[in-house]
Amino acid sequence: MNTQLQRTFKKIGIIGRHPHTPLTDTLNSLISVLQKANIAFLIEQETAEDAQISASSFHPGNATAEASEIKKWCDLIISVGGDGNFLRAARLCYPQDLPIIGINKGQLGYLTDIHPQEISGLLKIIQGEYFLEKRFFIQSKISRNHAQIASHIALNDVVLFPGEMAQMIEFEIHIDQKFVYRQRSDGLILSTPTGSTAYSLSAGGPILHPTVPAFVLTPMMPHSLTSRPIVISAESAIDIYLSEANKSKPRLNHDGQENISLEVGDCIHLEKAPHVATLVHPLGYDYYSALRSKLNWSEQPIFNLR
Amino acid sequence: MNTQLQRTFKKIGIIGRHPHTPLTDTLNSLISVLQKANIAFLIEQETAEDAQISASSFHPGNATAEASEIKKWCDLIISVGGDGNFLRAARLCYPQDLPIIGINKGQLGYLTDIHPQEISGLLKIIQGEYFLEKRFFIQSKISRNHAQIASHIALNDVVLFPGEMAQMIEFEIHIDQKFVYRQRSDGLILSTPTGSTAYSLSAGGPILHPTVPAFVLTPMMPHSLTSRPIVISAESAIDIYLSEANKSKPRLNHDGQENISLEVGDCIHLEKAPHVATLVHPLGYDYYSALRSKLNWSEQPIFNLR
Amino acid sequence: MNTQLQRTFKKIGIIGRHPHTPLTDTLNSLISVLQKANIAFLIEQETAEDAQISASSFHPGNATAEASEIKKWCDLIISVGGDGNFLRAARLCYPQDLPIIGINKGQLGYLTDIHPQEISGLLKIIQGEYFLEKRFFIQSKISRNHAQIASHIALNDVVLFPGEMAQMIEFEIHIDQKFVYRQRSDGLILSTPTGSTAYSLSAGGPILHPTVPAFVLTPMMPHSLTSRPIVISAESAIDIYLSEANKSKPRLNHDGQENISLEVGDCIHLEKAPHVATLVHPLGYDYYSALRSKLNWSEQPIFNLR
Amino acid sequence: MNTQLQRTFKKIGIIGRHPHTPLTDTLNSLISVLQKANIAFLIEQETAEDAQISASSFHPGNATAEASEIKKWCDLIISVGGDGNFLRAARLCYPQDLPIIGINKGQLGYLTDIHPQEISGLLKIIQGEYFLEKRFFIQSKISRNHAQIASHIALNDVVLFPGEMAQMIEFEIHIDQKFVYRQRSDGLILSTPTGSTAYSLSAGGPILHPTVPAFVLTPMMPHSLTSRPIVISAESAIDIYLSEANKSKPRLNHDGQENISLEVGDCIHLEKAPHVATLVHPLGYDYYSALRSKLNWSEQPIFNLR
Repeated sequence: MNTQLQRTFKKIGIIGRHPHTPLTDTLNSLISVLQKANIAFLIEQETAEDAQISASSFHPGNATAEASEIKKWCDLIISVGGDGNFLRAARLCYPQDLPIIGINKGQLGYLTDIHPQEISGLLKIIQGEYFLEKRFFIQSKISRNHAQIASHIALNDVVLFPGEMAQMIEFEIHIDQKFVYRQRSDGLILSTPTGSTAYSLSAGGPILHPTVPAFVLTPMMPHSLTSRPIVISAESAIDIYLSEANKSKPRLNHDGQENISLEVGDCIHLEKAPHVATLVHPLGYDYYSALRSKLNWSEQPIFNLR
Repeated sequence: MNTQLQRTFKKIGIIGRHPHTPLTDTLNSLISVLQKANIAFLIEQETAEDAQISASSFHPGNATAEASEIKKWCDLIISVGGDGNFLRAARLCYPQDLPIIGINKGQLGYLTDIHPQEISGLLKIIQGEYFLEKRFFIQSKISRNHAQIASHIALNDVVLFPGEMAQMIEFEIHIDQKFVYRQRSDGLILSTPTGSTAYSLSAGGPILHPTVPAFVLTPMMPHSLTSRPIVISAESAIDIYLSEANKSKPRLNHDGQENISLEVGDCIHLEKAPHVATLVHPLGYDYYSALRSKLNWSEQPIFNLR
Repeated sequence: MNTQLQRTFKKIGIIGRHPHTPLTDTLNSLISVLQKANIAFLIEQETAEDAQISASSFHPGNATAEASEIKKWCDLIISVGGDGNFLRAARLCYPQDLPIIGINKGQLGYLTDIHPQEISGLLKIIQGEYFLEKRFFIQSKISRNHAQIASHIALNDVVLFPGEMAQMIEFEIHIDQKFVYRQRSDGLILSTPTGSTAYSLSAGGPILHPTVPAFVLTPMMPHSLTSRPIVISAESAIDIYLSEANKSKPRLNHDGQENISLEVGDCIHLEKAPHVATLVHPLGYDYYSALRSKLNWSEQPIFNLR
Repeated sequence: MNTQLQRTFKKIGIIGRHPHTPLTDTLNSLISVLQKANIAFLIEQETAEDAQISASSFHPGNATAEASEIKKWCDLIISVGGDGNFLRAARLCYPQDLPIIGINKGQLGYLTDIHPQEISGLLKIIQGEYFLEKRFFIQSKISRNHAQIASHIALNDVVLFPGEMAQMIEFEIHIDQKFVYRQRSDGLILSTPTGSTAYSLSAGGPILHPTVPAFVLTPMMPHSLTSRPIVISAESAIDIYLSEANKSKPRLNHDGQENISLEVGDCIHLEKAPHVATLVHPLGYDYYSALRSKLNWSEQPIFNLR
């Protein structure tokens, strides 16, 4: 962790959203802090509408805008909301690799470090007191009859689901062109280290520290008791072939946000995407502290060390 | 996988042992094949005694010898027995990094590729038809009152056990000098990818492909249900501090073979060792095939691909 | 296990089906064995059509018929196919409690004891060499706005699914009118001992011996790591309330065969059904042997006991 | 739950102990409450010594005594300390089946309902406002060369451990004289519903509600990935045979408190003990509430029901 000052940020894009709770208060605090400090911003149109925030009150130069416009203009994205919104923001910015920082909903997230009560602390970060962390994306490419029909990215995970509930899905996996296994299960998760604390964890997958250059392949409720999560190199390419035995159309989900409908016979090719996400963290950031907080691990060290 | 010929081997060291089954037949076949092909070998004294093999029948130049002598002389180690003996051989060779190949007991091992019925195939390997794979070791360093009192290596895993059965052990973990968690459990396993299919797997850990540069930290029957295996970078350093609350002397086990008795207050420092093991594989070797065979995964791919 | 002769069976109903494989050969063998022994039978219309078996070749008195007719007439049901067909047959017979025996697809099932090569052995069973085992059903009752809108039964399990893939479902559980927990997960399984080796096992549930008068409540990929399968008395009543937070319509599945679409606010009431299924087993039947075979447990006892 | 008054208690036995924390304050509060209410008590000698409580301050009739004397005299046992001390108290009272209630260490236990701040509430219980719950014990009988050499009881669990750390143990299980499986593992737990939230839970076992008349057999880190916890009838008898392959002497532990050293060839016979423990609960007691509290399950129901 480097305590030297980094590049300052001058143009802030604000992207926020929450399925249940309006974020009006947090967004107003953020806007107020930025305007007081004369830092230019654009706020996503939809975000402003959801929170019933009107651009008429903004200082000149600040405005609402479409996400596509924001990402061309800004040099820092602030995500306001939960980890889900952070994923949405990161996906929007791809492949531009804009630095992103997250304000959470009052509870530490895995991706959102800043508590709404500590928004003023954001100024320090904007002024260069931060450090950057690179996180890789998965890129999916779906082929049908030897032609690529779709390609998407995921920062957390790509999940293969059966088309119908209560139906197993049958598929086979090849890694680096080697046959690995054929499986009948409720689905399969390919997760990055970033996603290893999300859906994959619920399915029994391990936690992968963000510095580990690897994917984890986690079966969902596999028919066979000997199926186990496998951690493979992030340089590996994974091919999933859907068995002709599948009666309904499986689906491929990206970060819980983008669903692709598949046909039997399709091939799903998964590998590390060419571009990354850049997370901005405050200087005190500690990955393990976030883990403890989210997983209710005991907080107190026994020893005073060093 | 390179199909070009590699360096040929000229001086073979043979190290074998099995707790239950005498390896006489396999060793005799091996010796016969090597002598027919005029390839020089030394066989470990203990191995020969266990199998009641007398050096009097050897061609001139071949002999029995202490392991310490063998490792100075040979350019290839052949391990005869199970994965346990392979670990023993790899540990004996450390830090010299001699290439090792394993003849198994009639069933594919995770480390021992060659079936006793296919010993003659070893000649191809000796003549250069093989490929090499590097596997890293863990190095443990135990400190007491600020002085290092012991240091050992492990190719599979280092396991922290309580001193008494039916007693939990309390400790805390720091990774790269950051506090991770305090835990009460039946123990803790730090495993390499090589060891991820061994004890760690029984404790619920994931499988790590050998190319993943990472450790997995697997708790053994943790008191807290939110404890989960964590995969961390192989460049990380792990420090384990034993709580004063432990009533009995914990123990540190290396590869199931070397036990160190610990005191409360000791610090266990674990990191990647400076030297590696070099595994020799026949050209057809396939890691996933070994996995399938050992874990009873379904063998038949559905599709004929490529 | 009683070796005394039981009541003989005189009127056989045959119900068979398999999603992938035609059962023609097995059905023809069965029909031939029964006709040779002059045992009267009715075969389900659909079963006969699927297998392209024509009633024109039947001895007088034997015929094809609707399942509803079969169940009024016969004193033994023979299920031909896998465990899925056995479940279908048991559900069809409810609440009449006809004895059922299953011919499997060539591999021991959990419910289907008779190998297609051993159909002639069925005659012994028909003549009274068998024992009976009672298995209880779950009964679901779904209430909407204080009125019961549906009621179904399940011999294996009742599964609560989210309405959409990749969506968590939120609900709360009350057992015997006591609040147990609120949960966000991919769903919930209530299984009988009979179903404990099916879907619940894939979700991490324990095996329940058929003589244990209990349900197991198994969460599917729960958001919280501290959620665990709970085994509760078969005399308990379970109420599941669907949170208003659910965005899509959840579904309730019975034995993987019957799906009910739910609304937010619905209450699902689950308890032991008033009637049972009666399984007929050949005298040599051994539950643990079936377990070992299905789960690939090691077959050989070490000791020769008694 | 019956709200009618039950039998009042007149002679209290106090048994307390904690490995780390002195219980002086809690014990003094308890003694003070009992003396004010003129309720006779005996306090275990060791308990009083550990807490440095002198009988000289007691009202006439109250005294310290050996546990063996206490159990002959009293009609209610109050356990002071954690679940471990409660187990000790319950074991001491066997087979006399004295009602027991537990004062915990400030946090709800699975067995100890009364918070030290609420000791005065004990008077209500003593005066008859309580309900009773029966919990069954396991009885172990160890045979060597066809003769029984030991017999013990356990309220939580009986655990088979290897004699040495880092050694697998090999054994085979028979239930009701049927072979179940042969296993290599780190050990085996047979747990009652009472013990299902203790060691068995750490090993991956399910929770068994106290009303379920069953044991759970939970393997500890089994070598085979298909080994799963099995719930069997409390009327079943389990026999464990130790393989001759075991190199060290395994041990049998009862409730984490009593250890028996075994020999290869010994047979361990386990079944429900003839006598029970009787737990006394305050009228508001709720098993699921204790579960939620201990397992950090979310506390708030969504709905206000009934």
